[in-house]
Amino acid sequence: MGGGVSKLASVYGPVTDDLPRVADRLLELASEHDRLLGETLEHVFQSGGKLIRPALVLLSGRLGSYPIDELVTLAASLEVVHTATLVHDDTIDGALTRRGVPTVSAVWDGKVAILVGDFLLALSAQLASLLDSVRIMRLLSETVMAMSSGELRQYAASSSHAVDEADYFQRIAGKTASLFAMCCEGAAIISGQSEEEIAALRAYGSNLGLAFQISDDVLDFRGDEKTLGKPAGNDLLQGTITLPVILLASRLPAGSSLGRDIAEGRNVKAVVEAVRGSDVLDVSIERAGGYASRAREALRGFGDSEAKETLVALTEQVTERRA
Amino acid sequence: MGGGVSKLASVYGPVTDDLPRVADRLLELASEHDRLLGETLEHVFQSGGKLIRPALVLLSGRLGSYPIDELVTLAASLEVVHTATLVHDDTIDGALTRRGVPTVSAVWDGKVAILVGDFLLALSAQLASLLDSVRIMRLLSETVMAMSSGELRQYAASSSHAVDEADYFQRIAGKTASLFAMCCEGAAIISGQSEEEIAALRAYGSNLGLAFQISDDVLDFRGDEKTLGKPAGNDLLQGTITLPVILLASRLPAGSSLGRDIAEGRNVKAVVEAVRGSDVLDVSIERAGGYASRAREALRGFGDSEAKETLVALTEQVTERRA
Repeated sequence: MGGGVSKLASVYGPVTDDLPRVADRLLELASEHDRLLGETLEHVFQSGGKLIRPALVLLSGRLGSYPIDELVTLAASLEVVHTATLVHDDTIDGALTRRGVPTVSAVWDGKVAILVGDFLLALSAQLASLLDSVRIMRLLSETVMAMSSGELRQYAASSSHAVDEADYFQRIAGKTASLFAMCCEGAAIISGQSEEEIAALRAYGSNLGLAFQISDDVLDFRGDEKTLGKPAGNDLLQGTITLPVILLASRLPAGSSLGRDIAEGRNVKAVVEAVRGSDVLDVSIERAGGYASRAREALRGFGDSEAKETLVALTEQVTERRA
Repeated sequence: MGGGVSKLASVYGPVTDDLPRVADRLLELASEHDRLLGETLEHVFQSGGKLIRPALVLLSGRLGSYPIDELVTLAASLEVVHTATLVHDDTIDGALTRRGVPTVSAVWDGKVAILVGDFLLALSAQLASLLDSVRIMRLLSETVMAMSSGELRQYAASSSHAVDEADYFQRIAGKTASLFAMCCEGAAIISGQSEEEIAALRAYGSNLGLAFQISDDVLDFRGDEKTLGKPAGNDLLQGTITLPVILLASRLPAGSSLGRDIAEGRNVKAVVEAVRGSDVLDVSIERAGGYASRAREALRGFGDSEAKETLVALTEQVTERRA
């Protein structure tokens, strides 16, 4: 949005032309409300993003009957869910900007941000209800439950400086992969695909989401303040221990001072430097690549098409991200 | 909950025995989750309340076929919505206790409270999805939209110290009456009532909700710290201008110093004393009585029954509340 669809758009292939309909739908929704609510909605819907979730909805729908109006509604609903979680996450983190745009908590305040996030969660359900499918609505509610419990798990892990790989994967499965999975599964359902295809697309989305989040967590260490809009190692500064740190910790001899720094949330700068100076970022990207390749395998049963090629290309792109 | 169903229970008549099933269902839901999520859910579901919303669901359902399992599910879903908004409201207000029980933001913190509230909103939708009715789910999403936009309106009014009666009614219609209306309307739908009866029960719930909220706003001035668990005039201290203050302001001569105090959010103590010393609290209760009587009128078309009598009794009880 904002300046339209960004970099990744080149890989959205056959649905690139339909994607702006999703962004338009969101701005239309904002314009239905006036005063504080209308202003905040317009603000969040203009703040941009790569529209990867709407793209997943449309591409997955292309593997079926491509009922474009319904797919645009589902894509809008799920982008609204994503937006709601960003608004609440920024409030939780006290973030002042996101992608260079001031957050709702910064422009208004945390109270407004909580209420706007709640409104957005309800709005996503209202949009989904237009599809007239209890199955889609149940999936949506379970997705939001998975997302918020994943975030709660992350919060608990931050408080205890937990260095736990299984917990990390449960966290990112909830907070990121569940919505990616729902984008693909939901689109498969409303485009009339078979139960087998629905399950395959869910597996694709879920694995792509894991790859995407790991790659995001690596980028957080690799980027610099200019490309990221936040300092390298920002997650760790916020207390969030991600895969690179977990891999680093697993290699440290018992009782090492760096290990203690990690476990006690101290000397973040030294930990960030150690991460950047070792190969754990490459190893993490390899792990992401493993999930990306499982995502590709999940598509095996689908015949060749431009949409399938694009979904495959996304699995490659996701581990090559630079921003 | 906690010590079971409290004072108002005596007027819940024919559904009193079924009400504990709703409270049990909520605690059962909490026990399905472990660690931080399970603990917070157990905490909020034990924190009690009058269960007026679940009672409205069961009583309204009694006017139809009384499908008790479905009604318990709907009542649990709507009590979860109510709980979600309490958790977020307490976070917004920085409240440390509610009914003498520490809030989630006090026991854990605001971050946990935001995420638990989000989880609860999604949980309410998941519960509602068990009823297999898109109509119910759409109603639920629109109810939460009305509630959060009502709260946003209240927030905007607090910031500007707006003394505006129309705005006050829009606020309380959103934040309170919409959920009361949904309790009755939803129960009417799932208990197989006619469209006319559904609309009548919606009107009953909506008017009862307005009466309930006005009465709550009066209690905020009338009570003392012991019965309320907060100082008299607490709403005004928080910046929320309610009907008694609006009525008081409308009687003050232009340019009076008290009028300026109200408009500028100053000298709250003096304003509270002026409210308590005038008859605006009685006049407000009369206004509440007007809505209560509209609620009774909405029930005209229903034949005599114990459930109807109980719903009628609630409209009387609501303006006689002392806590």
